[in-house]
Amino acid sequence: MNILEMCDWEAATVPLEATAERAIRTMLDRHVGAVAVIDENHRVAGIFTERDVLLRLSLGERDPRNISVREVMTAPVEMATRATTAGEALATMVERHYRHLPIVDDDGQLLGMLSIRNLLQARVDTLTRQIDQVRSVVL
Amino acid sequence: MNILEMCDWEAATVPLEATAERAIRTMLDRHVGAVAVIDENHRVAGIFTERDVLLRLSLGERDPRNISVREVMTAPVEMATRATTAGEALATMVERHYRHLPIVDDDGQLLGMLSIRNLLQARVDTLTRQIDQVRSVVL
Repeated sequence: MNILEMCDWEAATVPLEATAERAIRTMLDRHVGAVAVIDENHRVAGIFTERDVLLRLSLGERDPRNISVREVMTAPVEMATRATTAGEALATMVERHYRHLPIVDDDGQLLGMLSIRNLLQARVDTLTRQIDQVRSVVL
Repeated sequence: MNILEMCDWEAATVPLEATAERAIRTMLDRHVGAVAVIDENHRVAGIFTERDVLLRLSLGERDPRNISVREVMTAPVEMATRATTAGEALATMVERHYRHLPIVDDDGQLLGMLSIRNLLQARVDTLTRQIDQVRSVVL
């Protein structure tokens, strides 16, 4: 199973010129903890997450209606490709304390948004299948 | 392994009369996504999470310095006890869309804060051990 298959259906995105408010409303509407921020060439410019909200907007210093998501997003952001293994993705996320990793093609365009929860869930599924197989051989 | 052993070291807490700002600063300082809110009898009154920040404070309608955490926390909150199994805890969290579950004693006092990530990580560890054991029997 490659990391793209582990992602939830269709990643949430906002354009780079969106306000922080729009990015927040997208997260609320889509029930996700992160949105990918996409530039005019359809490439991933950064991500904006619940953690960014907590860090940069939650104490009310800035008005999310008057601020661009570009100013409060996490960028540059580590990204994965189709060739990245689940193990490599998990190592990056644990090391950098990221909960999300955009998966992009060779042109930097978004293919999916991988969460650490997707990775752990997929690992549970794989191990459960393996143990069932090994047991069926033994018993 | 019981669910208490799966928790991160010492849960972050704030008193019920704390401001939302204090709760947010506690989350930032402790690098956690949720704090338990504790009443005057040392019982868990609710939890306050990154999701609550996104839902109730991120759009700047209210000033977190002038609002009590009591007004923006999630309460009542589902809780687990020492007797709750990992499977029961996971089922509750998936069903209710919670990422955190406080573990309390018979008196409602906080023992730990369980995250869905703790649960998945513990399950990966258990399955990995099991598969190693079964393989060592086969090979």
